[in-house]
Amino acid sequence: MLNELKEQVFRANMDLMKHGLVILTFGNVSGIDRSKGILAIKPSGVSYEKMRAPDMVLVDLEGKVVEGKWSPSSDTPTHIALYKAFPGVGGIAHAHSEYATAFAQAAKEIPCLGTTHADHFNGPVPVTRFLSAKEVKADYEARTGVIIVERFARLEPLETPAVLIAGHGPICWGRTPAEAVRNNVALERVAKMAIMTALANPTVKDLPTYLLRKHFLRKHGPRAYYGQSEPSIPKTRSPKK
Amino acid sequence: MLNELKEQVFRANMDLMKHGLVILTFGNVSGIDRSKGILAIKPSGVSYEKMRAPDMVLVDLEGKVVEGKWSPSSDTPTHIALYKAFPGVGGIAHAHSEYATAFAQAAKEIPCLGTTHADHFNGPVPVTRFLSAKEVKADYEARTGVIIVERFARLEPLETPAVLIAGHGPICWGRTPAEAVRNNVALERVAKMAIMTALANPTVKDLPTYLLRKHFLRKHGPRAYYGQSEPSIPKTRSPKK
Amino acid sequence: MLNELKEQVFRANMDLMKHGLVILTFGNVSGIDRSKGILAIKPSGVSYEKMRAPDMVLVDLEGKVVEGKWSPSSDTPTHIALYKAFPGVGGIAHAHSEYATAFAQAAKEIPCLGTTHADHFNGPVPVTRFLSAKEVKADYEARTGVIIVERFARLEPLETPAVLIAGHGPICWGRTPAEAVRNNVALERVAKMAIMTALANPTVKDLPTYLLRKHFLRKHGPRAYYGQSEPSIPKTRSPKK
Amino acid sequence: MLNELKEQVFRANMDLMKHGLVILTFGNVSGIDRSKGILAIKPSGVSYEKMRAPDMVLVDLEGKVVEGKWSPSSDTPTHIALYKAFPGVGGIAHAHSEYATAFAQAAKEIPCLGTTHADHFNGPVPVTRFLSAKEVKADYEARTGVIIVERFARLEPLETPAVLIAGHGPICWGRTPAEAVRNNVALERVAKMAIMTALANPTVKDLPTYLLRKHFLRKHGPRAYYGQSEPSIPKTRSPKK
Repeated sequence: MLNELKEQVFRANMDLMKHGLVILTFGNVSGIDRSKGILAIKPSGVSYEKMRAPDMVLVDLEGKVVEGKWSPSSDTPTHIALYKAFPGVGGIAHAHSEYATAFAQAAKEIPCLGTTHADHFNGPVPVTRFLSAKEVKADYEARTGVIIVERFARLEPLETPAVLIAGHGPICWGRTPAEAVRNNVALERVAKMAIMTALANPTVKDLPTYLLRKHFLRKHGPRAYYGQSEPSIPKTRSPKK
Repeated sequence: MLNELKEQVFRANMDLMKHGLVILTFGNVSGIDRSKGILAIKPSGVSYEKMRAPDMVLVDLEGKVVEGKWSPSSDTPTHIALYKAFPGVGGIAHAHSEYATAFAQAAKEIPCLGTTHADHFNGPVPVTRFLSAKEVKADYEARTGVIIVERFARLEPLETPAVLIAGHGPICWGRTPAEAVRNNVALERVAKMAIMTALANPTVKDLPTYLLRKHFLRKHGPRAYYGQSEPSIPKTRSPKK
Repeated sequence: MLNELKEQVFRANMDLMKHGLVILTFGNVSGIDRSKGILAIKPSGVSYEKMRAPDMVLVDLEGKVVEGKWSPSSDTPTHIALYKAFPGVGGIAHAHSEYATAFAQAAKEIPCLGTTHADHFNGPVPVTRFLSAKEVKADYEARTGVIIVERFARLEPLETPAVLIAGHGPICWGRTPAEAVRNNVALERVAKMAIMTALANPTVKDLPTYLLRKHFLRKHGPRAYYGQSEPSIPKTRSPKK
Repeated sequence: MLNELKEQVFRANMDLMKHGLVILTFGNVSGIDRSKGILAIKPSGVSYEKMRAPDMVLVDLEGKVVEGKWSPSSDTPTHIALYKAFPGVGGIAHAHSEYATAFAQAAKEIPCLGTTHADHFNGPVPVTRFLSAKEVKADYEARTGVIIVERFARLEPLETPAVLIAGHGPICWGRTPAEAVRNNVALERVAKMAIMTALANPTVKDLPTYLLRKHFLRKHGPRAYYGQSEPSIPKTRSPKK
């Protein structure tokens, strides 16, 4: 059932490992089939060496396991909360990657200091508030989803496809599981460069907004002209054919 | 004799190398057979390229070599002291991994700044005092074990399965040699992130205690629900089956 | 058409990846055939795994695609501006490599702190000014070329074969695409060491000018005696034959 | 001629690359046959990919090439000066490895902050003075050797088998080319940890001298008991056989 989705989610999980974002059994990626309301997600605590596509667990939006011999990732309720709140999202990746996690632990948003950031995130990468003791006790993983959604009250999820959970680490998403992983790769690079930039210049200022918008839009806007697949690029525009 | 234990210890030593925690001939892992009172440990100063499972040296709890053509690790007396004091420990790993060693050299405990830390260590990773000149002269490696045990007077070794020896480096342990190595991998990641977190926010505060406990217990407590093997998870709890 | 140039440019792009300077689809290298006035450049947004030499796009100095099924890199107008202004340049590499980009984001030139730097760059690596909102709107990528050329008004491009675009990242060049990539490799190492040097000594001073010149000239001057190919080394000079 | 020495020197050069200490064509290792007064050294500016053992150049102690089709490393006069001044040295390695070079650029000695350092260097790793403009002009590479020897006026070269050339980088040595490379590997690790230690504790103090001596001597002293080959270990000493 949903073998194609399981395969995509499996590959995205392996890419998370391949890019050096996870160690041991940390990290998880999921993907959703919106028509069926079912997500495929990494099993909990299974090693990357032994994991195969059929090991992905199928779960419905109430958190009930639909298929699979393993328990799903313990972060499954967080994924579900995001799929419910962000309709355009098709894949979610969570890794304790070093530098993005450092910002999450610091409870500091990642400022937009350059065009690498702007190529992926249309503004600073936001950080949630800390959960209260009461929320942790009530339903920890689901409430983690709640504070992320709360933080995005005035943000467009697909324009800022990442968040830092205070004291925990980043969660990234995208239209597909593969895109979620790519956003995590970019986030980690951007976080590391932000720390090194501050070492090179402790009084560095944010990238001017007009440069931020330009880079985000040349890659993601309706008239994007980065990459190959956007049909909206006018043929007369040099250097595109 | 004890070939299965030697194999486990050999693999754990190779994993220490594979995870980038050691260079040259640094580092050593041991494992114990409690019923026989014998430990298997890496030979001293032998290169990882040439080492094989039969090269592991068998030593009793008085430090006498029981079997093996090589001299055991010069840190053997430290391992023995820990096995004697910590009955639940089945494996010990020692590596001069970069960031954990930086904290040991700094003689600073590693504060718990996030859930990655809390997933493995139920509080800050403690640091020993420095040995006195007299202690170093008397019996250096055994006394190193003594100050570790002294530091754990009010700590549960399997809840905080790592220590920093001041001016030296970390020692990690676990129920098995493999678990000791996994704890070293986690410790190194946690140490690096602690330094980067302080660069991102020099006034960062420790993770709230209720979050620290939650993460430690969801993975290690009697009602743990991370991973696959804990039988104590109630079947009704979503998203576990 | 120009298969040899495409092959060189393809290999240089792959080397950029191999040296860890790029992730995902970031980065691009081009090379020029001066006699034909045509450059070969990486296609936009194509993955390194799938890219082959015939995928390189041929573009003329007006930015018109001469051959190729893909759109050329969106940074093509920047490359063209540099080829037009710097006649000795045969290859250009652009990567968002971590530490050089940190300096670009910091809008700080990379000071010459040691002989590794002096072996490649005859002085500090300069940084451009920021583009104005008006310039970004008018013709972003071409104007990026303009501010680089502006910054080199009193610099010799082949003596300082790199620049930092403020808020963006480095661009390197050389007599060939391969040399442009080697300069990027050296720049990244030099940038990382500059940050670590400042951590080791926050009041570090620039390398004395006489040492800077000596190192640059022993490798690049008319009487260079580093490497094998310079014919100008006097035979009597020991230790060269 | 001297094929065995060439083979050793070749392998040591390749190990320098394998351990990530050099990039591009940076770095060089030599070894000496004391009975013949001839050293084998890496050719200048030749890539590691193409280099083979027969490419090593044989040079006498006056710097005259005895055999080889390539020019020897441009740093050959520095190597010769060290072989002449330090009779016990059999191999020399020079790499612009990142963190050791950062200290050299900072013109700061590497303090002994822990036992990893003490396992290899019997005290801080010293830094030379800067060469004067006059010395650079007169005979740069040979004078580099002179200031190293000057710095070791009151140091035993085989107890502190490394030096930092101010503004340049480290040079390491040992009884063999392989040992010189191992010392470079250890130096780089020690340098990186020194920087990270200062981040973890800006007011860190040097390792107590009694711990420094203990570690150096248990590995290198007449009664060393680290490793397998020292015959001086008393048989009665536990845990050695």
